[in-house]
Amino acid sequence: MRKLLVATHGRFASGIMETFKLIMGENEDISEISAYVEPGFDMQKEAEKKIHELNEEDELIIVADIMGGSIANTFSSYIQSEKIHIITGLNLPLLIGLAQDLDSDVSTDELIENAIQMGREGIVDLKKMIEENSDIEEDF
Amino acid sequence: MRKLLVATHGRFASGIMETFKLIMGENEDISEISAYVEPGFDMQKEAEKKIHELNEEDELIIVADIMGGSIANTFSSYIQSEKIHIITGLNLPLLIGLAQDLDSDVSTDELIENAIQMGREGIVDLKKMIEENSDIEEDF
Repeated sequence: MRKLLVATHGRFASGIMETFKLIMGENEDISEISAYVEPGFDMQKEAEKKIHELNEEDELIIVADIMGGSIANTFSSYIQSEKIHIITGLNLPLLIGLAQDLDSDVSTDELIENAIQMGREGIVDLKKMIEENSDIEEDF
Repeated sequence: MRKLLVATHGRFASGIMETFKLIMGENEDISEISAYVEPGFDMQKEAEKKIHELNEEDELIIVADIMGGSIANTFSSYIQSEKIHIITGLNLPLLIGLAQDLDSDVSTDELIENAIQMGREGIVDLKKMIEENSDIEEDF
């Protein structure tokens, strides 16, 4: 079974999950870590706990806030395992893309590739897009 | 003066701003709206308030969670104004890209273009990237 873990510095993870649930509803295959919020938080211990919770047939896709940050770096020590995947640059279109095909038949590589494309294409300059569309309309 | 407004459904905005401040420190030119959290929240009124707070020389770059959502849609009724810009697909690299050059000499168009590139390029499959880099090393 594929599972998602949304993991960030601070309450970005719990915040985006609140927003995700408003749009997509509850999903028990998605968990979250808001790191360094509680005193004594230990990222290494949290990562180990999440990895050890996995069953034999599970895969875990970790979605982290930023490349080079301590969340992505801590989990990257597990990346040799076929069961562990890490994506950085968490945004809502990426998360929706991952969640909506999480239990579908597409391969994990394809799932990740499609969701990354959704995440990237969802970052849009709306003013530019509206101006370009109005240019197209004027051309016809 | 250029200002940023981070605006999302739910507490995504306050969450990512907590994370942003952990990394980049306080920035008084960035404000936030976590919409629909309080009962009686009125998106149209909040948008009007933000627009009317602007001084003559101000520009406002709104960073919203998702294209087609009510936050981006509400603000897009102001997009004819040269002072108003809207970017969708909020993530941390995008926000850092906008913030770090907010009071620099680059034009607003260039600022937005560079930050969007940072946001998109920050969405990375870390496993794939590490495998590709190790392939390159093996080639030499």
